[in-house]
Amino acid sequence: MTRTEATRTGLDLAPDARVGIIAGGGSLPVEIARALARQGKSPFVVMTAGEVDRISDFDDYEQVTLRLEDVGSLLPTLKKHHVTHLVTAGHITRRPRLSAMRLNLGLLAWVPSLLVGVTQGDDTVLKLFVRRIERSGIKVVGAHEIVPELVAAEGVLTKAAPRKSDWRDIDAAHAAAKAIGALDIGQAAVAVGGRAIALEGVEGTDGLLERTRQLRGHGRLAGRTRGVLVKCAKPGQELRADLPSIGPQTVEAAHAAGLAGIAVEAGRSLILEGPTVVARANALGLFVVGLPAAEPAHGK
Amino acid sequence: MTRTEATRTGLDLAPDARVGIIAGGGSLPVEIARALARQGKSPFVVMTAGEVDRISDFDDYEQVTLRLEDVGSLLPTLKKHHVTHLVTAGHITRRPRLSAMRLNLGLLAWVPSLLVGVTQGDDTVLKLFVRRIERSGIKVVGAHEIVPELVAAEGVLTKAAPRKSDWRDIDAAHAAAKAIGALDIGQAAVAVGGRAIALEGVEGTDGLLERTRQLRGHGRLAGRTRGVLVKCAKPGQELRADLPSIGPQTVEAAHAAGLAGIAVEAGRSLILEGPTVVARANALGLFVVGLPAAEPAHGK
Repeated sequence: MTRTEATRTGLDLAPDARVGIIAGGGSLPVEIARALARQGKSPFVVMTAGEVDRISDFDDYEQVTLRLEDVGSLLPTLKKHHVTHLVTAGHITRRPRLSAMRLNLGLLAWVPSLLVGVTQGDDTVLKLFVRRIERSGIKVVGAHEIVPELVAAEGVLTKAAPRKSDWRDIDAAHAAAKAIGALDIGQAAVAVGGRAIALEGVEGTDGLLERTRQLRGHGRLAGRTRGVLVKCAKPGQELRADLPSIGPQTVEAAHAAGLAGIAVEAGRSLILEGPTVVARANALGLFVVGLPAAEPAHGK
Repeated sequence: MTRTEATRTGLDLAPDARVGIIAGGGSLPVEIARALARQGKSPFVVMTAGEVDRISDFDDYEQVTLRLEDVGSLLPTLKKHHVTHLVTAGHITRRPRLSAMRLNLGLLAWVPSLLVGVTQGDDTVLKLFVRRIERSGIKVVGAHEIVPELVAAEGVLTKAAPRKSDWRDIDAAHAAAKAIGALDIGQAAVAVGGRAIALEGVEGTDGLLERTRQLRGHGRLAGRTRGVLVKCAKPGQELRADLPSIGPQTVEAAHAAGLAGIAVEAGRSLILEGPTVVARANALGLFVVGLPAAEPAHGK
């Protein structure tokens, strides 16, 4: 089972600590806000314009909406609202358009990160982002530290367990996901019949699974059933910024793609809406398994 | 330019030599048959059932149609027609269905290859295929040896040349293609804005380019133009069986995907219908470039 026993955050927050959330799409930022509110630590939410899809779920919290292009005003805004800890959560599908940026002093501080980010991939940008924020005295924390109950546990989490042939698929997809992760291209791969057949690029996991669904009719997969999705952190990944995650829609899409199950790395992945994930996987006969992680759970 | 000056094959065929072609889809097997016929070496063509799309182009040659599942009768057929050299050419999109195979002695000889192939990828199957054929005394040759004029030359082959930013894309896509090649997953990758954004899996290069076209509207590619397709041999690839190739439709699809050009490895890739490829690329403003290959041009 996912670790539902945890009710407190994994952080020891001082009485005057205030957590800011940079919120993107999906349910993770909502779950983080709720976990903080439950402990009497109402968060300050920075809604990323055009990315947050569960807008009304943030109605109870103090908030501001920020365009990606206005990243220059992020630090002054956080300071004004006495934010001491910052967590980024949810997917940001857009990238800032340089042409839409207003030049100001706040933005200038980000220019080195932006220039590097243009050619070196998201993970580099995220690491620079963390460094830049922390230089201002705000501590950047990971979603897994605030909602440790979402962190994937090790072992089989569902009624169904991988068969021997599924473990071959898991190994093949895991190796592929690690290889493309090392190149900072994607986090996920699908294997069928003991071979990786589809790799995640910029289209994301939903796109990868939709493609897998369409590939089922492909001649080279003739007669092949089952298969798995493996999603894992990149080697050396900044865990405070972009932890791999799955949720109920991942289970639905994996099932639609004809897969037998999903594997993630324990301690280095999040399972959003864990009880729903497990219930849907059980109803559909899919397995969800947490693999032993090759690296420790905390970012460098 | 592609090497159009070559008019003879790169093979010294004895007067009584006869070349068999295992033909799949696309124009490569047609070009091979014509090149042989031009030298008075009319080939014996094994048409792979359901794969050959230019069927009437083989009307002039002695031929037989074989289902993938009837691979067991391949060697006796080749022997009966006095085939001394064999080349496989064109894409085979299906994989044999074990359930459709008739058990006979000829098939039994292939069982070890089939079993290994189930889990170890196409490249392993192809190597075993070559070994099995050669044990029977038939020499397996590469398409590049019969039609050396199709082998990609080094350097810029078109009027347009890569810009500095395109070289960054070429480097990124080349590294990605090599990485997935090392895992025997695919041969091609697309990079945009200095980063690999889409990787070839079982869907093939056409599928990869169609996906790239669709991804152009993706937020994470906002404002990014150009980009390249790189296609290259896997490290240690059996060049006699599955040489990477591009053709006119690759140019059209790359253009439709908004890419600025295509790069292949010189000496280890084929450019089918080379004059048409160059003419269409020039008309569309795309570059086609042959990269120095990291490995020698001949298979191991």
